[in-house]
Amino acid sequence: MTEIDAPPHPFTAAVALTPAAGGRLRGRTRPEYANMVGPFGGITAATLVRAVQQHPDRLGDPLSLTVNYAGPVADGDFDVTARPVRTNRTNQHWMIELTQDGAVATTATAVFGLRRDTWSDTELAMPSVPPPDAVAVHGFPDFIAWARNYEMRFVTGAVPEQGAGEHPDSTSTLWVRDAPARPLDFPALTAMCDVFYPRVFLRQGRYVAAGTVSLTVYFHADAAELEACGEDHVLGTARTHRFSRGYFDQTAHLWSRGGTLLATAHQSVYFKD
Amino acid sequence: MTEIDAPPHPFTAAVALTPAAGGRLRGRTRPEYANMVGPFGGITAATLVRAVQQHPDRLGDPLSLTVNYAGPVADGDFDVTARPVRTNRTNQHWMIELTQDGAVATTATAVFGLRRDTWSDTELAMPSVPPPDAVAVHGFPDFIAWARNYEMRFVTGAVPEQGAGEHPDSTSTLWVRDAPARPLDFPALTAMCDVFYPRVFLRQGRYVAAGTVSLTVYFHADAAELEACGEDHVLGTARTHRFSRGYFDQTAHLWSRGGTLLATAHQSVYFKD
Repeated sequence: MTEIDAPPHPFTAAVALTPAAGGRLRGRTRPEYANMVGPFGGITAATLVRAVQQHPDRLGDPLSLTVNYAGPVADGDFDVTARPVRTNRTNQHWMIELTQDGAVATTATAVFGLRRDTWSDTELAMPSVPPPDAVAVHGFPDFIAWARNYEMRFVTGAVPEQGAGEHPDSTSTLWVRDAPARPLDFPALTAMCDVFYPRVFLRQGRYVAAGTVSLTVYFHADAAELEACGEDHVLGTARTHRFSRGYFDQTAHLWSRGGTLLATAHQSVYFKD
Repeated sequence: MTEIDAPPHPFTAAVALTPAAGGRLRGRTRPEYANMVGPFGGITAATLVRAVQQHPDRLGDPLSLTVNYAGPVADGDFDVTARPVRTNRTNQHWMIELTQDGAVATTATAVFGLRRDTWSDTELAMPSVPPPDAVAVHGFPDFIAWARNYEMRFVTGAVPEQGAGEHPDSTSTLWVRDAPARPLDFPALTAMCDVFYPRVFLRQGRYVAAGTVSLTVYFHADAAELEACGEDHVLGTARTHRFSRGYFDQTAHLWSRGGTLLATAHQSVYFKD
């Protein structure tokens, strides 16, 4: 329980937006969530979800999100505009832009909506892994600032040592939670969908220039299921289907410890070798 | 080889766009590609790819596409606007809208770009299936107009008879090509990413109200790989990870007969039971 006067959690501070002129929202990059160049893509995606959530016309909770990383986000202030393009009875379509000095750095679309009780089933099997306490904490190299905000316990596919050599498959599976721990919500889940480092690093056993071009998240969990996760670890697993001529895909699945499939996420990644 | 005076292939006609006022493109829904309500979502997605392809400022070929089906498309004329939001050295980000009488029916974002030779690898295994000639042609019920434009040979997970009863898993795998046959190109591949009927039909063994909300395609193949497919069959396989409270996801993989992973696609689908 947060004390009244405690500073906000670094994640909460990083996704905070304040109203600005012309219906825009103003945010600011945080050094805590910096990547090699610009901010961690996950924090940008989470900020765009936050922008819709705090819009007065918002209907329901996120169902899907696509974020296109069109250009670099410079350290400092940025503006976000979130526009409801079409509101139906049970869902709502959004277009979102992040700009700096009038130049578009990031575009996104999102679908929010109301859920109804229906027949439900999870067909995908949760990976069989040891519990988080049985897996050592092992994060990213310390110079990746944003990763210091996550407690990561890799079951398989930890970040390779530079020059580790080629690895036969691209799968990483890890327990992850915010550090310090923080109750799971839609922005936090969104950011966790992007904690998987570029799969080419694992396959090649070395760092190469790589960056997410487009990220899509499907939110399977409703607000009650997220709330039930509390501050507990989330199990994430990610892999690539094909690396081809400068681009590859990454698919990720995120599970609650209890076996709820919280989200599936997909991204297209640019790389140089 | 098409004769000079032959009418265009129905697919080519369905994705055709002509310049209109204000930089817009004008298209028209075709009865050949009608779905239960409005046009087949795949033909809409293909038309949006076509809109970018014929834009004078277009850079390279499609890398990723997200289409949001915000509202119904009525039979008749529609307008498409495709706007390059940001052009980088090797890729280009697009925002696309389809409107009718000024109301937004469909929004999309796309990334186009140039490919470079890099280390490449396909990690996903192609399903082991009999060749197309060894699988019977079995399509959709005849009242689904658009499906008559595809030759479908289901290896598993054919459209269930109404009242077939529950089925334990959501996977369909089929050989598919345009009917009549047509050389594969990016719009045709895009449409094929959406030929998989709603997975809830298969699981429930009956038709329910269902419709795609958002579709994302990652194009793994380059133009030369598509050209090499010619008019041959494409192998598609699709499944759901989770059905939950009115929505489910579908992930699809499309392969050339020779084992090239052409595209992976993902969608969020609304359903009522």
